[in-house]
Amino acid sequence: MTEPQAAADPAPITASVMIIGNEILSGRTTDANLPYLAAELTKLGIRLMEVRVVADIEADIVDAINALRARYTYLFTTGGIGPTHDDITAAAVAKAFGVVLHRHPDAVALMSKRYKPGELTPGRLKMTEVPVGAGLVDNPVSGAPGFQIENVFVMAGIPAIARAMFDGLKHRLKGGPRMLSRTVVSNLGEGLIATDLGALQARYPDIEIGSYPFHRRGVFGSSLVLRGIDAARLDIAAEDVRALVRRLGGEPTDEPA
Amino acid sequence: MTEPQAAADPAPITASVMIIGNEILSGRTTDANLPYLAAELTKLGIRLMEVRVVADIEADIVDAINALRARYTYLFTTGGIGPTHDDITAAAVAKAFGVVLHRHPDAVALMSKRYKPGELTPGRLKMTEVPVGAGLVDNPVSGAPGFQIENVFVMAGIPAIARAMFDGLKHRLKGGPRMLSRTVVSNLGEGLIATDLGALQARYPDIEIGSYPFHRRGVFGSSLVLRGIDAARLDIAAEDVRALVRRLGGEPTDEPA
Repeated sequence: MTEPQAAADPAPITASVMIIGNEILSGRTTDANLPYLAAELTKLGIRLMEVRVVADIEADIVDAINALRARYTYLFTTGGIGPTHDDITAAAVAKAFGVVLHRHPDAVALMSKRYKPGELTPGRLKMTEVPVGAGLVDNPVSGAPGFQIENVFVMAGIPAIARAMFDGLKHRLKGGPRMLSRTVVSNLGEGLIATDLGALQARYPDIEIGSYPFHRRGVFGSSLVLRGIDAARLDIAAEDVRALVRRLGGEPTDEPA
Repeated sequence: MTEPQAAADPAPITASVMIIGNEILSGRTTDANLPYLAAELTKLGIRLMEVRVVADIEADIVDAINALRARYTYLFTTGGIGPTHDDITAAAVAKAFGVVLHRHPDAVALMSKRYKPGELTPGRLKMTEVPVGAGLVDNPVSGAPGFQIENVFVMAGIPAIARAMFDGLKHRLKGGPRMLSRTVVSNLGEGLIATDLGALQARYPDIEIGSYPFHRRGVFGSSLVLRGIDAARLDIAAEDVRALVRRLGGEPTDEPA
């Protein structure tokens, strides 16, 4: 008989995001998916731990998929699932999982319904190809589906489609306790508050205190952000942070002036 | 005596960017440095190949620094060089290089000039600490410098400061031939053009043709972007792309409608 185990904190649910596309790396396009996914994952109690932006190079995509899917609970990819020659995400995911691509029957049915026989071009048929073993992710905007294989969710890059896909798949995700936050805006330069804030952080190991400096209208200040899962503890710690700002001669506010 | 080597294409100059900070991963802050750096590097003929966003966790930062600095010509980091307890970039870079931190005399001189003796707090002195062997990167906005060690450039996260730091250090970078681009906007769904566009790409191995779909006012179309270093070849290939769009019944334009 084994010893009974003490109840441990459940392992946090974590995620990573991979943005695939030369257009982000060249500066031509500004990614708009990360801010959305980061905020949505936070709402679900899933901690986004790492993001990678990779080029349209199969070996690079394969390596990043395998690194991220092994390390985090979930991996979400955006981009590279269209019909053109530079859309290589499905092939890279298949290679990462050591499987081949096949035309998913449900995807073929879906695309056959959407396009007349003459319009179901080789390019559009390419969008029915997913790694063997993958299930589909619904695309309510333009039809061509994303897919899920194990803990990897593969979504389109166009923001409206990526969002719709994520909203449609998020019920499949296991969330954790939601991370709550309190923000105290300080009008003191970070250099004045750093030492005492570090001491305060040491007193609240269950709360993550971040200091995000800003420089507005000639004033250096910082947003002091407290994050944790216990609202009452956060309120107490935030009051301590406000008291610290006041003690150092500053004026804490809730939002930047 | 060794055989004479055929003149090879010079190795491309490559770069990676690492964005350090929980605030980006939580969705609280939207990164504004990547679009700037991506565009500036492209102008310098340096190819940005990979970006990582990592949390304020020392081991994660160390691993990413070592992976990226080994693989690419340059690594640029943003964030985590302020005075507070969550600013751990300098310590992580030192660990990645196997050296210790020291107070850089020029940084101390600079901060001593900026602050009166009583105002040179431990937090502000922390910002003079760089890995042994690092040179400084000028900060014309708020004084506290960034630093360079070998091929790694460490910059602040505040966009105005990151930009000023990059503008001040870019003369140190070795650029390559500048990547030029031509854009043909097609009002055809990607699925209609995919096969022929792939064949056209095969005829221009020296040009990278990307198709970036959009969905605007109910129309699915795509921006067909040609990138390469030879302007004359790009013009010829772009004309071929326009002809292809017309042949398939579309109307090529220079900018999205």
